[in-house]
Amino acid sequence: MAHIELPEGLPGIRALLTYRPETARPLNDLVDVLLRGPHSLTPGERELIATYVSARNECTYCQSIHGAVAARQLGSDELVQQVNCDPEGAPITDKLKALLLIAARTAESGRRVTAADVDRARQAGATDLEIHDTVLIAAVFCLCNRYVDGLATWTPPDPEFYRQRAAVIVENGYTLATRTAT
Amino acid sequence: MAHIELPEGLPGIRALLTYRPETARPLNDLVDVLLRGPHSLTPGERELIATYVSARNECTYCQSIHGAVAARQLGSDELVQQVNCDPEGAPITDKLKALLLIAARTAESGRRVTAADVDRARQAGATDLEIHDTVLIAAVFCLCNRYVDGLATWTPPDPEFYRQRAAVIVENGYTLATRTAT
Repeated sequence: MAHIELPEGLPGIRALLTYRPETARPLNDLVDVLLRGPHSLTPGERELIATYVSARNECTYCQSIHGAVAARQLGSDELVQQVNCDPEGAPITDKLKALLLIAARTAESGRRVTAADVDRARQAGATDLEIHDTVLIAAVFCLCNRYVDGLATWTPPDPEFYRQRAAVIVENGYTLATRTAT
Repeated sequence: MAHIELPEGLPGIRALLTYRPETARPLNDLVDVLLRGPHSLTPGERELIATYVSARNECTYCQSIHGAVAARQLGSDELVQQVNCDPEGAPITDKLKALLLIAARTAESGRRVTAADVDRARQAGATDLEIHDTVLIAAVFCLCNRYVDGLATWTPPDPEFYRQRAAVIVENGYTLATRTAT
């Protein structure tokens, strides 16, 4: 049961976004710009970073929904699982591996990101903007994970629920998807 | 030295907000609504929560600037220091003490917030909205602290710098203050 009285039937962050529309608007805008705006990293790569951070923070809701979005965008459930379990061994670019390490460090503490971590990403071809956005995506999901779990929101157990919702998000984005009932 | 090339002469998050205006806008909007919007908690109380979380996350820049804003709003530097060091012993309301505990738990992990923590806050008079916003303020500062430190931004050492900047923020809010040079 959630720690506060929330709109019924809405899972995870969706109940919170409906409960407090004043903070929902900028939060959705931030996530839409970061994960879906024009970028040299694909939306699927950025969703992988969000999913990986959420998995490390053990947030089941965020890990499930962003994992489902990433799987839909990248065409593979298995790849998402591989990245979550062992990014260094997953079939992804060296650049994305280096960015995932920066994301993991950021999730522990901003102070854990080292110049050597950043150098590795740059050697693998990462731009300043890609490094910046990786840190910010990781930081934003440290927010979302704590928001969702800190208020003990509802986490549906059925993976199919997340697959259906991912289709709505990939089609419409986060801001518009918040306004849909399904 | 920062991990990426940032606009010169701007400290902490201000360099990042100038570097990436697309994410700066929603982030400033979120902080303005949460810390300065109409609320049953005063702006000073909300800044205390932001400062306390930033201190626990050992983010010197965020702790310094939000501590200076809180001190200006509450009329006491000493109170901010007391809350950072020992909230249970500080001369603040029982409600704020209970909310600060929820904020500290959230900063560790959303999963650390217990029903007992929330009950204590409610017994001390906290509303659902106050509990919600405490969790979200704590989560937002887990974002800001990681963003500022994860990119190794500049942290000016002089406390007077933060006092002067706090005056600009209290007068104008975060969104407008980002556009000012001083």
